[in-house]
Amino acid sequence: MTSSCGWSSTAPRAERRGREPGDARALRTVRQGPRGRRAGDYLQSRVHLLRGLRGRRGKGLPELRRRARGAAEARSGGEVILHDYLPSGNGYKVRLLLTQLGIPFERIEYDVTLGETRTPEFLQRVNPNGRVPVLETDEGEFLAESDAILFYLADGTRFFPEGRLERARVLQWMFFEQYSHEPNIAVARAWVHVFGLEMTGERRLALEAKRKLGHEALGVMEGHLNGNDYFVGGRYSVADIALYAYTHVAHEGGFDLAGYPAVRGWIERVANQPGYIPITQG
Amino acid sequence: MTSSCGWSSTAPRAERRGREPGDARALRTVRQGPRGRRAGDYLQSRVHLLRGLRGRRGKGLPELRRRARGAAEARSGGEVILHDYLPSGNGYKVRLLLTQLGIPFERIEYDVTLGETRTPEFLQRVNPNGRVPVLETDEGEFLAESDAILFYLADGTRFFPEGRLERARVLQWMFFEQYSHEPNIAVARAWVHVFGLEMTGERRLALEAKRKLGHEALGVMEGHLNGNDYFVGGRYSVADIALYAYTHVAHEGGFDLAGYPAVRGWIERVANQPGYIPITQG
Repeated sequence: MTSSCGWSSTAPRAERRGREPGDARALRTVRQGPRGRRAGDYLQSRVHLLRGLRGRRGKGLPELRRRARGAAEARSGGEVILHDYLPSGNGYKVRLLLTQLGIPFERIEYDVTLGETRTPEFLQRVNPNGRVPVLETDEGEFLAESDAILFYLADGTRFFPEGRLERARVLQWMFFEQYSHEPNIAVARAWVHVFGLEMTGERRLALEAKRKLGHEALGVMEGHLNGNDYFVGGRYSVADIALYAYTHVAHEGGFDLAGYPAVRGWIERVANQPGYIPITQG
Repeated sequence: MTSSCGWSSTAPRAERRGREPGDARALRTVRQGPRGRRAGDYLQSRVHLLRGLRGRRGKGLPELRRRARGAAEARSGGEVILHDYLPSGNGYKVRLLLTQLGIPFERIEYDVTLGETRTPEFLQRVNPNGRVPVLETDEGEFLAESDAILFYLADGTRFFPEGRLERARVLQWMFFEQYSHEPNIAVARAWVHVFGLEMTGERRLALEAKRKLGHEALGVMEGHLNGNDYFVGGRYSVADIALYAYTHVAHEGGFDLAGYPAVRGWIERVANQPGYIPITQG
């Protein structure tokens, strides 16, 4: 039983304990694989290295060395790199904000179900905590923790307020998200929808507890949004992005949002923001 | 089984599920009860209302109304109020920073084992998420989430750096603390040391998992501190305060720090900071 999730730990940990994710990958519904560049008022390029490279290039070089090369090439163009896992809502937060800010980025995909964020190379070079997303800045610095990345990117933009209390409130909601929301709502979704883990008796009990706590978190959000269009200062900010990521796909973890009309209204407002992209978009 | 802790939820939730914390309060080792003001270069006053008031004044007024009156009196003096639970490391973070900043504060104590942060009054007035610590500012605003409070208090002071990346790094470590560290190290301590919960088979398994994940978090810290005196920018910041709170009492949750010499050296450096107070000090 693990109390934390992170888009790198749940499945690999389960594997280390001898619990295979089973037919997880068959059940995964999110598209993967290379896609082309997209034209528009911003340039958003993607690097989908994993399965594609394996298929195309065989086993000549260690995977991570290839990725590092891709990263260096991307950086030489002054771009940032997002070390990512497409089904992850934590990664989606960053993809959404980067897109809405119009910042071009390369994306490097790791299959967390294969433990690819737990290799010695990843732990040494990218994130010793073995998780994605990690932002690799245009100066080659690695920054982990999705909400810290949002802060880094948003500070000084329209996505982060200026007043002292309002700034702290954005962080309050982000810590709420990582402590009371994500470990329940995201992890339930991960087990059921992304990894498709086998529901042992133990895990079924844990899932039940997560659903209860997840509904408590949704209740807190409902109470706040009942009278507020957004989480802080009456306008869309990274607090909304942080909370939206897993809330709008909560049903994939078995959460029925029927009882949360204010949350549903807010989900619609967020989805109507300029530059919005869906969670399935890399 | 709950994946989150918070200094308000574990015990009350256990109670709601019919699991009484048993002899928790007998085992609690942290002092409670009124203590006097302390003279010095800062004024730090405390309000310990709970048991004292009950004994002295009986049941005349609802508890929270009395507390609200205390809070109003404190605010009239321009002071901030900390809604707190003394054994909480999350509360201690704020107490330590307030003290080191020389900010006078009143402290209002809630016994989370009695569900005192889950009353309708608390949820409506103080924190809809039912947790402490909550900072009540001198303007009467309520701010929850310990690390958001640290940000609020520290920004613009020597406890928070100025560079863009360094600021995000402070938050990276704080999110690491709330996601990978606190839910394991703090919760193990809460179960074993603070609440003294009965170790059912289920909880023993969960504790084992928490210890494993807690050691992973300590390993990440050890790796970073092996070559860094502090977490960010080579100097003491709120990242250190956030991580110190539960690390230095990790042994109370069964974590042996013998294998973490760099962490132990850092613990000593933090404890030697000017204005340091121990976790037992309200």
